[in-house]
Amino acid sequence: MSTPWQQRYAQRMQRMTSSAVRELLKLTSRPEVISFAGGLPSPEVFPVEEVRAAVDRVLTRHGTSALQYSTTEGYAPLREFIAASMARYGIRVGLDHIVMTTGSQQALDLIGKVLINRGDRVLTETPSYLAAIQVFTSYGAEFVTVPVDDDGLVTARLESALRCGPKFMYVLPNFQNPAGVTLSLERRRDLVALADRYGIPLVEDDPYGQLRYEGEHVKPLVVLDAELNNDHANGQYRGSVIYLSTFSKTLAPGLRLGWVVAPPEVVHRLVMGKQGTDLHSSTFDQMVAYEVVKDGFLDTHVKRIRQVYGRHRDVMLAALAREFPPELGVRWTHPLGGLFLWVTLPEGMNSQALLQDAVAQNVAFVPGASFHPDGSGANTMRLNFSNASEPMIEEGIARLGRVVRASIARQAPREAVASS
Amino acid sequence: MSTPWQQRYAQRMQRMTSSAVRELLKLTSRPEVISFAGGLPSPEVFPVEEVRAAVDRVLTRHGTSALQYSTTEGYAPLREFIAASMARYGIRVGLDHIVMTTGSQQALDLIGKVLINRGDRVLTETPSYLAAIQVFTSYGAEFVTVPVDDDGLVTARLESALRCGPKFMYVLPNFQNPAGVTLSLERRRDLVALADRYGIPLVEDDPYGQLRYEGEHVKPLVVLDAELNNDHANGQYRGSVIYLSTFSKTLAPGLRLGWVVAPPEVVHRLVMGKQGTDLHSSTFDQMVAYEVVKDGFLDTHVKRIRQVYGRHRDVMLAALAREFPPELGVRWTHPLGGLFLWVTLPEGMNSQALLQDAVAQNVAFVPGASFHPDGSGANTMRLNFSNASEPMIEEGIARLGRVVRASIARQAPREAVASS
Repeated sequence: MSTPWQQRYAQRMQRMTSSAVRELLKLTSRPEVISFAGGLPSPEVFPVEEVRAAVDRVLTRHGTSALQYSTTEGYAPLREFIAASMARYGIRVGLDHIVMTTGSQQALDLIGKVLINRGDRVLTETPSYLAAIQVFTSYGAEFVTVPVDDDGLVTARLESALRCGPKFMYVLPNFQNPAGVTLSLERRRDLVALADRYGIPLVEDDPYGQLRYEGEHVKPLVVLDAELNNDHANGQYRGSVIYLSTFSKTLAPGLRLGWVVAPPEVVHRLVMGKQGTDLHSSTFDQMVAYEVVKDGFLDTHVKRIRQVYGRHRDVMLAALAREFPPELGVRWTHPLGGLFLWVTLPEGMNSQALLQDAVAQNVAFVPGASFHPDGSGANTMRLNFSNASEPMIEEGIARLGRVVRASIARQAPREAVASS
Repeated sequence: MSTPWQQRYAQRMQRMTSSAVRELLKLTSRPEVISFAGGLPSPEVFPVEEVRAAVDRVLTRHGTSALQYSTTEGYAPLREFIAASMARYGIRVGLDHIVMTTGSQQALDLIGKVLINRGDRVLTETPSYLAAIQVFTSYGAEFVTVPVDDDGLVTARLESALRCGPKFMYVLPNFQNPAGVTLSLERRRDLVALADRYGIPLVEDDPYGQLRYEGEHVKPLVVLDAELNNDHANGQYRGSVIYLSTFSKTLAPGLRLGWVVAPPEVVHRLVMGKQGTDLHSSTFDQMVAYEVVKDGFLDTHVKRIRQVYGRHRDVMLAALAREFPPELGVRWTHPLGGLFLWVTLPEGMNSQALLQDAVAQNVAFVPGASFHPDGSGANTMRLNFSNASEPMIEEGIARLGRVVRASIARQAPREAVASS
C-alpha cells in the first residue's frame, strides 16, 4: 500500500544527513574490528561502584523526588557544584547562569534552536566537531570557516571572516575534536577581543578541558571574556561567551549530563527551548551524579583518567612513529589532552576510500572530510585513543600502517619499488 | 556594559512563550498551596525499592555498558518489551518500528522537527495538550481545531477541517489532557477512516492508556489503522499513525523515558532528528527501567496505580458535587481514567482572573484558555487529581469552592443575595 509519509517531511530533513560517525560505529561493531572511529571513553575508568553507592544513598534519602518530574533548569545542588567548579577556573557565576542539558549534544541543539534563523552564518574552525556542524545545518546555518594549526584556530585569519557577519562563533579551544590541537593563550586573548569588538557571541565547547596530559591549564574563553569586561567580580557574568561542558568524559556518557554556563538572559532562552524539547534531563541521573561528585571524587578520578588516557596517547604516538617513517609524508598532531589525534596523509590520498580497505583489515577511523564544513580534508582522518586498550592500539595502528603503506605504494609505484 | 544578545535570538523564539504550566508550578511550590495545577504522578506509587534492586542487578551484570554511550534508537531489550506490550493491544511491530525518547515531550519535539515546515497547519482537538501546542508553535505551525465533547473529538466536524489541508492530526484518545474525555470506538473508526481517505497522518498521544478506572479498554488508533489496512499480519505496520507513550505515568517521570511506535520509515527520520538532539536517552535509565519491568512488574503495579488514582478521582468528583450544587451552573467531566478533569464555569467567568484569588486561598489549577489554540475557553480550568492525597483533594476543592462561589456572587449579586 502507499503511505502518506513520502511528501510530508519538512524540507530541512533533506539537509539532515545521518551521522557518519554513528553509521561507522554500526559498521565497526564486529568484535574483531579495532575501532579508532568513535569517541567513547574507556570502560576501564567508569566509576561503577561509586554509582552503585550513590544510587543507594539517593534512593534512601530522596527516593520519591529522584523519580519525580523536576525543574527544566536542572537539579540545584548539581548546578551549585558546577558553579563552584567554574570558580576554580576563575569566574564567579550563580545558579541562574547554569542550565543542565541532556548531554552537550542537547546544548548544541538548543543553541541552534535559540540563535539560528535559516540562512544565518555560523563561524567554525575547519575541521570542527561533526555533530555540531550537523545540528547547526539542521537549523539552516551556513558556515564561514577559519583553519586551525598546531596552536588552534588561526586568529590572524579571523577578522576577514568576521566581516561576513556570523551570528556566532563555535570553537573548541582545548584538545579540539577532531584535530586534537589546543588554542594558545595569546590567541584566546585575540579571539575574545575580536568577539568583543565585533559584538559576536562565542560558543566555547569544552568537553575535555580537565583531560590534560602535559603542559599547563590555559584559561577558558569565558574567563578571559569576564576579565576583559571586568564584570565578574559581582558574580554577574554578562559577557558574550556561552560555555559548554559535560560529565560524559569525566564520569559517564550513559547518564547524558552536560551543562551550559552563560549570561542569565541566554540561559533563560535556552531553558524555554529545553521545556519544549524534553521538559528536563533525568532527575535520577542528575541526583546520582551529584551524589558521586559532591565530596571531591572527580579530583581523584580525573587524575586516574589522565594517567590512563595519557598512556594511551603515548602508545598511539609511538606506534604511529614506528609505522610511518618520515619519508612516507604522513603527519599527525601531538594532542596535549582529550581523546583524539589527527592524521594528514600525503596530498591526493582519499581517506574515505582508504576506510574500506581498513575495515577489511579490521581497523577503523573517521575520514576527515566530514569534519570540514567547506568540503576540504579528503586526505585527513581522526583517530580516537581513549577507548581501545594499549595492546589494541598497537595492533590497530600496525594494521592501519599496512593499509596506508599499501595505498601509498599503489599511488606511487616507482617509489614503492625503489624502497622495497 | 551592553551585550550582543538582544537582537540575536531567532525569530521563532518570539513565539515560544514560557510554559504557563511550569510557571504556575513555580508559583505554587509553597508547601501551604494545594496544587491541582501540575500533572505529577503521586509519589505514593513510585517503585523506589524495585528501582534500587534493578540498579544493583544492572551494575553487577552490565556495569560498564550501562554507563557508556549507546544507540540512538534505544536499548534493544526495552524496545522488544514495548513491541510485546503493543502485541497485547493487537498490533505486531518489530524493533525498527520503535524509538525510545527522552520523555514523550521529546517525541513531540522530534515530530515537530521532522514534519512541520513554517506555516504548515496542524489539526488538534480544542482544548488540547498545552506543551504540544507550544512545541508545534515553535516550529511555525498554525492550528486547525475541532472541538471535543464527552465522547472526545467530534468527528462529525472533522471533514470540513481536513479540507484545510493539515500536515497531520494530533489527538489524545484516552482520558484526554486536559479535558479528561475518551474518544468512543465508533468515533475512532471514523477518525481512522477519514485519515486514510484524506491521506493525513495521525499522531496518537497515549500517555495514560493503562490508567483506566472504569469501563472497557478501547482499541488505540494505531491498531484500528492496522486492521483497516489489513497489513499488520506480517509484522510490518506501514499505516498512517505515529503512536506515542511513556513510562512517566506507570513507572517514574524522573527517568524521562517515552517511546514512539510508527512505520519504520518514520522511525528512521525521528532517529536522525534525535541524533542531533541528544544522541540517545540515558543508557542507565533505559537499562534500569527494563530491569524493573521485564518480568511483568507493571501488570501488578498498574493495578495499584489504578486503585489509588481511581479513589483520588472519586474523592474529587464527590467534593465537586458537594461544593458546586447544580444551580451554580458549574459543570465538570467524568474521566474514565488518566490524571485530569475539566471544569467549565458559567459563561462570562474568567478562570485566569480567578487563579489569583485561588492562589491567595492556597489552591491552584491551570486556567483553560492556554489549552485552546483558538483562544477560547476563558471560563474553563484543568484539575489534576493524581498528585494530591485524598484529604488534600477534599480540602483543596473546598477552598476552590469558596473562591468560585465568591466570584459568582460578585458577578451576579442579586442571585447571590437570593441564595444566601
